[in-house]
Amino acid sequence: MHAAADWLVARLAAAGLRARLLPNPAGFPTVFAEQAGRSPQTLLFFNHYDIAAYTNPLVVDGPTLPVAIRDGRIYNRGVADDKGCCFSRIAAVEAVLRSRGELPVGVKFLIFGKRKPNDSVIDDVLAQYPQETASDGVLWETGAKDDRDRPTASLGAKGYVYVELRTRALRTPQPSRFTILPNAAWDLVWALGALKNDKERVLVEGFYDDVMVPTAEDLEAVDEFGTSVGTEMLARTGARAFVLGETGPQAARRWLFEPSCAICGITAGYSGTGERLVIPAEASAKVEFRLVARQDPDDIARKVRAHLDRHGFAHVEMEVLSHTAPYRTLMADPLVQAAKRAARRVYGQDLVIRPTSIGMSPKYKFAPRPTVGLGVEYAGAQLEEPDEHIRIADWLEGTKMIAAVLEEYAR
Amino acid sequence: MHAAADWLVARLAAAGLRARLLPNPAGFPTVFAEQAGRSPQTLLFFNHYDIAAYTNPLVVDGPTLPVAIRDGRIYNRGVADDKGCCFSRIAAVEAVLRSRGELPVGVKFLIFGKRKPNDSVIDDVLAQYPQETASDGVLWETGAKDDRDRPTASLGAKGYVYVELRTRALRTPQPSRFTILPNAAWDLVWALGALKNDKERVLVEGFYDDVMVPTAEDLEAVDEFGTSVGTEMLARTGARAFVLGETGPQAARRWLFEPSCAICGITAGYSGTGERLVIPAEASAKVEFRLVARQDPDDIARKVRAHLDRHGFAHVEMEVLSHTAPYRTLMADPLVQAAKRAARRVYGQDLVIRPTSIGMSPKYKFAPRPTVGLGVEYAGAQLEEPDEHIRIADWLEGTKMIAAVLEEYAR
Repeated sequence: MHAAADWLVARLAAAGLRARLLPNPAGFPTVFAEQAGRSPQTLLFFNHYDIAAYTNPLVVDGPTLPVAIRDGRIYNRGVADDKGCCFSRIAAVEAVLRSRGELPVGVKFLIFGKRKPNDSVIDDVLAQYPQETASDGVLWETGAKDDRDRPTASLGAKGYVYVELRTRALRTPQPSRFTILPNAAWDLVWALGALKNDKERVLVEGFYDDVMVPTAEDLEAVDEFGTSVGTEMLARTGARAFVLGETGPQAARRWLFEPSCAICGITAGYSGTGERLVIPAEASAKVEFRLVARQDPDDIARKVRAHLDRHGFAHVEMEVLSHTAPYRTLMADPLVQAAKRAARRVYGQDLVIRPTSIGMSPKYKFAPRPTVGLGVEYAGAQLEEPDEHIRIADWLEGTKMIAAVLEEYAR
Repeated sequence: MHAAADWLVARLAAAGLRARLLPNPAGFPTVFAEQAGRSPQTLLFFNHYDIAAYTNPLVVDGPTLPVAIRDGRIYNRGVADDKGCCFSRIAAVEAVLRSRGELPVGVKFLIFGKRKPNDSVIDDVLAQYPQETASDGVLWETGAKDDRDRPTASLGAKGYVYVELRTRALRTPQPSRFTILPNAAWDLVWALGALKNDKERVLVEGFYDDVMVPTAEDLEAVDEFGTSVGTEMLARTGARAFVLGETGPQAARRWLFEPSCAICGITAGYSGTGERLVIPAEASAKVEFRLVARQDPDDIARKVRAHLDRHGFAHVEMEVLSHTAPYRTLMADPLVQAAKRAARRVYGQDLVIRPTSIGMSPKYKFAPRPTVGLGVEYAGAQLEEPDEHIRIADWLEGTKMIAAVLEEYAR
């Protein structure tokens, strides 16, 4: 990791930037580089030099595999996420500097070395280096070509609040013949029932208050994506249907723009085979509220607590296990518009814009700056798998795309 | 077990009855004895010669302990349940025959040797020997003196239907970012929520249709008992309160006369520590409907199934794991009245009548015959514990009580 950081500093310097390490006593240093441009505006590249662990639990992390280049592809662990993406930006900046002698806008690199997925390094660096990390916009890592080989960009991410609800009715489980004793499992079922109804409506007072209303352009972008939401996912998961029987664009709109509430687990009483005549003493549930832009995790947690209190569940304990804020950049933002113009120049086709991803991301930590995710990978890149790879042609296009975005943003 | 059965046959014969074994190829024989009386009516004694296993899982069954007689008590495993009770009936019949030369009513003994709690031996004997087992009423085993040393009799038992509900939404658990996929845990929570509300009202259509309405006398009997329902059970179990905050007679009436529904266990999704962002693929619950007299377990199971179907849960599987019918003898029955008169003669005080016990019992198998539970034990008998015992004075009174009931029933 330290060797990678040192290599990046040297490479960025060789490309013509002022580069250095931002030390991190608790983990790995962050690579920082900057170069002013013709315009006073500055774009920040967000990347990382660590490699994500395998997602597939059947694959064991081992020694780094050798790089293999064949069939126009580069195979290597982390080549898509995030080495290819990271280096495309260095190459783009270097190429612009060499060919034009200057950059159209100022650029900054922040290349993180995380020890684990929820490393505090981003928070630490943003807090410690406000001046170094300041920018007008952020070019986020990743943005794969989709399964129709069209370039995509993501403008946001969801957030979440993950809570555990616990209720205790008795000191120890009691025989069920004591029918007048309180039953923790019923208590939990009723508390959960007060959180969401079977129309998928979260019943927590004020839950939807801050939800960002999608614009016509947002809906259009998702409707296009939505036509493909369906048969594949249903077949793969064995689901009979999506919630409420929705399909296509309707399901896609719910998926991207609606906050939701999932029960991730329930523990109560006897769970073996056969019968046991018992009243559970305690019961608990893991509940995830997945948030969309402008909902605030702390505010939502407070509202859930107040809702439980108001509906007779003040005795149900609620512990917030973790949370992340959602964030979404507006379609109309100049950085998004610059990316759209750049895509038409480089790819000869429209950029497919995802108003938000379905997962979480630390993008919100850079708010209110616009963030646009652009990458060099494609739908078949096998991220976090042993055969992770990128196509060289995609990398070249992705690199040109970065150069074009810098130019278009300066207009 | 076989030696015990043979001993009982010999002892019953010595007492002056016609006694024999009803063989049971699948288990232990049933001891049967009969003797006609002055009146054509017949009472059947229900007892057993097996000894119940220890309830306390910390106590391991070992070799039979020697009988110990001290302080006016007889200590021995099974002495209260059911050897003392069983032998008190033999002794009572023998004493009446010896002193009067005849019995006021006909008697029959059915003394079962069960291999396990839900042995089919009772069903088998009732089916195979309809003539031998015919009677006008049944004197059931057990009926302890209560904690105020008053004689008690129980007139019935509850029933139950124990079901497992299972729902599957996905082939395997999926990441929770797929927020539009169906969630088995929510499905189960909503299905359970459709079964009972937080006012303890079972919502299954027709659930209460056949519930026997308690008479003024029933309520009076329970109100007396109800005054003691409270602090002890709350302190012992750590419950804040009984359901709906009810206390005393109100709680006791619900306990004895109202059917109920308990969730005995729920299994769904992740139940470890910390968070896991997952949509459970399947979820299941163990649900017990505890029934009161005149509810029919098969009918209730059908109604629950129909209710689930009607409320959008046709896809939720329901398996009936077991069931037992409730049964209750009317307070006004001549056998109950005879027992009340007999108690006044023998104990010099009123028989405390429990219209029903809170547990299950095979009493319903003898329906529609009246059953009255009378015994020789007391509240401190430590049933199913290593120091199980009876007090000799109680045994003598209990034996006289049986003789008195035979006389009073003949009037």
